[in-house]
Amino acid sequence: MVDEGPWISDLEEKETLQGSRPGNRYVRILSYPGFRRLGAGLLAPRESVGRPSTPLGRALEALKRLLIGSPLPSSQELQERLTKFKGLAIFASDNISSSAYASEEIMRVLVLAGALSLTMPITLAIIAVLAVVVLSYQQTIRSYPTGGGSYIVARSNLGVLPGLVAAAALLTDYVLTVAVSIAAGVAALTSLFPALFEFRVAAGVAFIAVLCLGNLRGIRESGTIFAGPTYIYLFAIFGLLGYGLWQLATGNLPHYLPSPERGHQTAGEPLTILLALRAFSSGSVALTGVEAVSNGVPAFNPPEARNAQLVLVLMGTFFGSIFLGISFLAGQLGVVPDPSEQETVVSQLTRTLVGDGSPYHYLVQFATAVLLVLAANTAFAGFPRLASILAKDRFLPRQFQFRGERLAFSTGIILLAFLGSVLVTVFEGSVTNLIPLYTVGVFLAFTLSQSGMVLHWFRERAHEGGWRWRAAINGFGAAATGLVMIVVGISKFALGAWIVMLLMPVLVVVLWAIHQHYERVESATVAETPVVPELIHPRVVLPIANLGIPARQAIAFARAIAPDNRITAVHVSDDPEERAQLRRAWEDWQPGIQLVIIDSPYRMLSGPLLAYVAAVQQTHPYDTITVAIPELVPSHWWEHLLHNQTALRIKAALLFRPGIVVVNVPYHLAGGSASGAPHDGWRGAGGASR
Amino acid sequence: MVDEGPWISDLEEKETLQGSRPGNRYVRILSYPGFRRLGAGLLAPRESVGRPSTPLGRALEALKRLLIGSPLPSSQELQERLTKFKGLAIFASDNISSSAYASEEIMRVLVLAGALSLTMPITLAIIAVLAVVVLSYQQTIRSYPTGGGSYIVARSNLGVLPGLVAAAALLTDYVLTVAVSIAAGVAALTSLFPALFEFRVAAGVAFIAVLCLGNLRGIRESGTIFAGPTYIYLFAIFGLLGYGLWQLATGNLPHYLPSPERGHQTAGEPLTILLALRAFSSGSVALTGVEAVSNGVPAFNPPEARNAQLVLVLMGTFFGSIFLGISFLAGQLGVVPDPSEQETVVSQLTRTLVGDGSPYHYLVQFATAVLLVLAANTAFAGFPRLASILAKDRFLPRQFQFRGERLAFSTGIILLAFLGSVLVTVFEGSVTNLIPLYTVGVFLAFTLSQSGMVLHWFRERAHEGGWRWRAAINGFGAAATGLVMIVVGISKFALGAWIVMLLMPVLVVVLWAIHQHYERVESATVAETPVVPELIHPRVVLPIANLGIPARQAIAFARAIAPDNRITAVHVSDDPEERAQLRRAWEDWQPGIQLVIIDSPYRMLSGPLLAYVAAVQQTHPYDTITVAIPELVPSHWWEHLLHNQTALRIKAALLFRPGIVVVNVPYHLAGGSASGAPHDGWRGAGGASR
Repeated sequence: MVDEGPWISDLEEKETLQGSRPGNRYVRILSYPGFRRLGAGLLAPRESVGRPSTPLGRALEALKRLLIGSPLPSSQELQERLTKFKGLAIFASDNISSSAYASEEIMRVLVLAGALSLTMPITLAIIAVLAVVVLSYQQTIRSYPTGGGSYIVARSNLGVLPGLVAAAALLTDYVLTVAVSIAAGVAALTSLFPALFEFRVAAGVAFIAVLCLGNLRGIRESGTIFAGPTYIYLFAIFGLLGYGLWQLATGNLPHYLPSPERGHQTAGEPLTILLALRAFSSGSVALTGVEAVSNGVPAFNPPEARNAQLVLVLMGTFFGSIFLGISFLAGQLGVVPDPSEQETVVSQLTRTLVGDGSPYHYLVQFATAVLLVLAANTAFAGFPRLASILAKDRFLPRQFQFRGERLAFSTGIILLAFLGSVLVTVFEGSVTNLIPLYTVGVFLAFTLSQSGMVLHWFRERAHEGGWRWRAAINGFGAAATGLVMIVVGISKFALGAWIVMLLMPVLVVVLWAIHQHYERVESATVAETPVVPELIHPRVVLPIANLGIPARQAIAFARAIAPDNRITAVHVSDDPEERAQLRRAWEDWQPGIQLVIIDSPYRMLSGPLLAYVAAVQQTHPYDTITVAIPELVPSHWWEHLLHNQTALRIKAALLFRPGIVVVNVPYHLAGGSASGAPHDGWRGAGGASR
Repeated sequence: MVDEGPWISDLEEKETLQGSRPGNRYVRILSYPGFRRLGAGLLAPRESVGRPSTPLGRALEALKRLLIGSPLPSSQELQERLTKFKGLAIFASDNISSSAYASEEIMRVLVLAGALSLTMPITLAIIAVLAVVVLSYQQTIRSYPTGGGSYIVARSNLGVLPGLVAAAALLTDYVLTVAVSIAAGVAALTSLFPALFEFRVAAGVAFIAVLCLGNLRGIRESGTIFAGPTYIYLFAIFGLLGYGLWQLATGNLPHYLPSPERGHQTAGEPLTILLALRAFSSGSVALTGVEAVSNGVPAFNPPEARNAQLVLVLMGTFFGSIFLGISFLAGQLGVVPDPSEQETVVSQLTRTLVGDGSPYHYLVQFATAVLLVLAANTAFAGFPRLASILAKDRFLPRQFQFRGERLAFSTGIILLAFLGSVLVTVFEGSVTNLIPLYTVGVFLAFTLSQSGMVLHWFRERAHEGGWRWRAAINGFGAAATGLVMIVVGISKFALGAWIVMLLMPVLVVVLWAIHQHYERVESATVAETPVVPELIHPRVVLPIANLGIPARQAIAFARAIAPDNRITAVHVSDDPEERAQLRRAWEDWQPGIQLVIIDSPYRMLSGPLLAYVAAVQQTHPYDTITVAIPELVPSHWWEHLLHNQTALRIKAALLFRPGIVVVNVPYHLAGGSASGAPHDGWRGAGGASR
């Protein structure tokens, strides 16, 4: 072989060349097409690199650019700092949007027993829990100014397992946030346009697809995008409630007309405590999204914690007022939920107060729909981010940690969109069907996070004044949310909570198993003793079907990497005549290596071949068995079906045999293209390097 | 490297060993575990070879053995010679079984115009065509004693394209034979057990699955299996017809009771010529299976041609009599087809003549069902055999030519079962829905075959006396079947014949394209100039993610197959800190090869890497670029999801780059098993070969 000259360290771009006389050496600077040299041994690809060369590839690339946008360099990652005004819009959208369905879900349960009069007491009870949670989370914000999600709080205070439980609960919740918010958003639209009702699943999936694309493009939670819809919703709904209360006060409350021609729910169930608890559980969906603020503390303008705390209180106040107002007015009007789920309670309320099809009715419904879609979008920010944290901690596959071309966590976004679409489809786009799955996880995460805070205060007792009452507040929060969790778990068990209660342990086990695997790989692959090339003796086994160019190329390659007496060509056949013919052709050719023919009476090919490889490995335990497979690479994709099936099967089987190196020696068919000379790279007679 | 001693030709089982002193050489006989030595360079695997080693693998293997049986060696292929008695049973079953539905299909069309009285004239017309075809095929049998299928006759006389058209027609027909026969067989059973009707699609698919398994096991068309059902059917049905005619003659014909409570077809259509032609087309399904005899001439006892001719005439006579008898008696009784397709006409006829639920009714129905399943089985013999002939002629992928463990053409059998099941499912197990697709292909094949015979006689005119009248007979046959084909094509076009008429050219193009591909590969891979290893200079590019054992192993292997200055490790990263860290670790390690780091500002991995490989290839046009990929092979299948995603993508992309050799250097995780020492084969210090 050539190039015996001294090797110049770390400079791939220089190459030692040897002249015709010994000692006559010089150095040539190579410039690599498509790359810029940044320093010693450091290259950077130029813009042109990686552009697809085929027309189809270019078309696909153009479509991708249109949908997703041009790639963004890592340096463009930015952190927007938020004012209180924008912060409220971003972090409260998830929580405030649940006012669109919380009252309705309480009423849907109560109407079964004809007990709609209990709506107000239950609403008040839920607002009381909300107050406890808001108070409790004030502490979390104070203690975790860098972001205090349930996973982080539970893991750092309670340990890995509770942290994983919280993570599993959160992951589940994010998926359900997407499904429920989108379903409710579509319901807000079908209230206006009943013709859309038939296509609600398709509409929901379409909304999720748009969110998915938008997030792959890298929509950041930009205050500008969020501020509009959130404040429009707040103004529209407060205006509506104010108008309704004024009508009530002046005794002008209009007469309520139920949704037309859609049957009437019969009050067939007795009013039991379990039913009341079920109504309470349904309504407690109102607390979803509270955690968002404590997750996002670092995004606020300084003083971050102070601003976040204020926003949390504001959110609780706004949401509580709307929730209370809707429940109250719906009760005063005597609104009954539409059994077909075609028109929402909010739409019925609005329609009754301001008139069906009036511009204000449209305003309220559209604002609700847009806000709900934005709420789903917060899950598209939260899920991939949590997944990337879990991947960094090695509880999820590495792919979740990888930022795509637009700096978004593509894997997490696509997975979330997929799971959300599945839920919307399976539960037929019905908010009521989805609710029982939702709240268990939310309250589990709350409970773990608040319990973690109790321990946190206990540990910090030396540094923190008043740790006792702080711990008491969080303890009370943990107890309250824990109680709600149990209530939800029991009262909604048969309605779907069981799915989540079954899924959560499975998820925890999966996260744990992935972690174990990565740990094991890490410890097993830490290099201790270097493997030196002098100890490696490749012994090549070379399966051939005939003596065509692919086989001859592979043989030539094998002879270039191993001595002739360590290479064996192998042919498997059940046909004695064919065997004799090949043997004769081989002896005519005299390639310089040995040919072993294996008789296969049962016409199997890969079985005997693999057995032979195993036998060679067993008889030569100190050699590195190298299987060189000649492959024919056709020019069209469909032609692949006509070739290499056996090669594929052999490669798949060899993957699981320890210590066997597989070499693919491809032969490319020219395929009629003028450029593709089939022998490229095989022409030999070492030009550049001589 | 070791082993520089002279190489001993053709004896893999001997190995040259070199002692410590130069010239001190001896030869060691190696015995390969699991193999027997048959001769110089020829091995045969022992029985134990290829047995699965994992519990799951053993369980799957046991299940396979249970379903399919033990493998059969190629030597066990046998040719059963058939008597006329058994030959009739085997080759006539397909044709005779169509008497179970031929009359009914005529009546189903005529009843639309209330013109059931036309059943007899149309039956007679079809029998006339049958007579012409039988006469015509007498000649084919005489001229092609080694088997005269339409494909062979058309190809050898008319050329490749007509041959392919005939082949496409036959392949389609075999699939439809399976679907129609199974559907009719299930209908014979639902006539007895109406409760089964609901599950007719499932029952049909189950029958096909049983046939598929049976044929994979390698049921040969054994005369013993066939003789029973065929003759039982003949006796049962002739007995029935005789009894009916006797009742008619004695004036005791019982009163016909239509199928109960299944509505009544209204005769809404006018009686047009098109309708009569449609009835004729439906009935001409009776001619399917005539070709079987001429296909199977070599299977008869000598004199083969004579015996086959006799069997063909007998078949025509038997079938014609049954067909005529059923049509006649159905007309006399006034049988009306059941619009719901729940009870067949034959069942109504039998029930009326011998009494509902009488043992004779059961006998006729079961005999019909079994015969129809056997008829489907003839397609399971014919389709794979034709596909294997086409594969041998390179019009279908090689896989069709391969005989499985039990000597059956597995690929063709499985494909046929799949397509048949699809048809039964799509057409909801209805014979009437399937019939329009069936007959076009049958008559196309007839026409091509008979036209081919005309040319055959013209070419043989020197050697064959009376070639004129022989050509005339075949010419008349071709004209008659061609006319029927046109009638069927037009009258059944909208009912489904268009599907086949569309499919056939597509199939021909596919067959042709496959042939072109194989021809091109053949001519492109014929070895002209040998590639000599001295001209091959591997230049290794080695992507690494870190300096763990997998990377170090791959580097050591690369250094064993190429000089150090022709190996470059490549690392792609967007993180300057990580890059610096790797560079430092590399410099500490000093592996003796160069490391190039590529900055990837857009976080892409495979793109820059592939661009780098392309750049190396461009700057070193006379080297063989070899990409060595370190791979981590985990011990459980699910762990694969956590690894090698990038390696897979790189390998897939490299497959389409001409001239690049890919080397997989696997590192197997021990996976907790005691036996798997992870460094097997890498321990080095060449033991056996020193």
